[in-house]
Amino acid sequence: VSRFTARTKLWIENDGLLVMSGYRLRLLELVHETGSVARAATALRLSYRRAWGKLREMEENLGCPLIVSEVGGAGGGHTTLTPEGVALLRAFREYSRRVEEASAAAFADTLAEALSALPPRT
Amino acid sequence: VSRFTARTKLWIENDGLLVMSGYRLRLLELVHETGSVARAATALRLSYRRAWGKLREMEENLGCPLIVSEVGGAGGGHTTLTPEGVALLRAFREYSRRVEEASAAAFADTLAEALSALPPRT
Repeated sequence: VSRFTARTKLWIENDGLLVMSGYRLRLLELVHETGSVARAATALRLSYRRAWGKLREMEENLGCPLIVSEVGGAGGGHTTLTPEGVALLRAFREYSRRVEEASAAAFADTLAEALSALPPRT
Repeated sequence: VSRFTARTKLWIENDGLLVMSGYRLRLLELVHETGSVARAATALRLSYRRAWGKLREMEENLGCPLIVSEVGGAGGGHTTLTPEGVALLRAFREYSRRVEEASAAAFADTLAEALSALPPRT
């Protein structure tokens, strides 16, 4: 068993502006699952304000609404993803899955042997 | 032509400690090419002290020497990579190449279509 791990950080830019990342995927997934930015924020230990800020920044950098809110009512409203939001969530999730899979395979083929030949750290 | 770009950051950890990254690969490559930590540092706009710090940190986290210095002489010595340093450099370069290739293919298959369906940002 190797002590070594290949780590990846993946994100999407639009003209250099951040539109999606692993962290933002998690935020969208939580809004989608809970129907609430407040609950998504709590799950990520983000302030409500910061969670909204991230969502608005994604929409602005993408140029397209990702979420729709129904204001008010019992419980303080409900937030759902737009069709574009759902499509982006699914596409980025699949993109990430494939890259992670490729990373694990490439690590096994290239680095695992070179690293396992090293003496253990003392 | 898409305005959107998939970006990746790749690194290797040993028990949670950073041992290799794209930036560190570039540093090792430059030491290998120039035979000098000073020249490698200049090329990366790093201070000499910081370049050495990064190299020593990599060696410490890896548990293995990556570079060997011949101190003194005309021009102030010469630094070469150990066989382990060369092996790590090559293996990580190949690992990165494969993951980048997989990322481009996965992006084309999953995100390119979903993103190109969006209206242009105004």
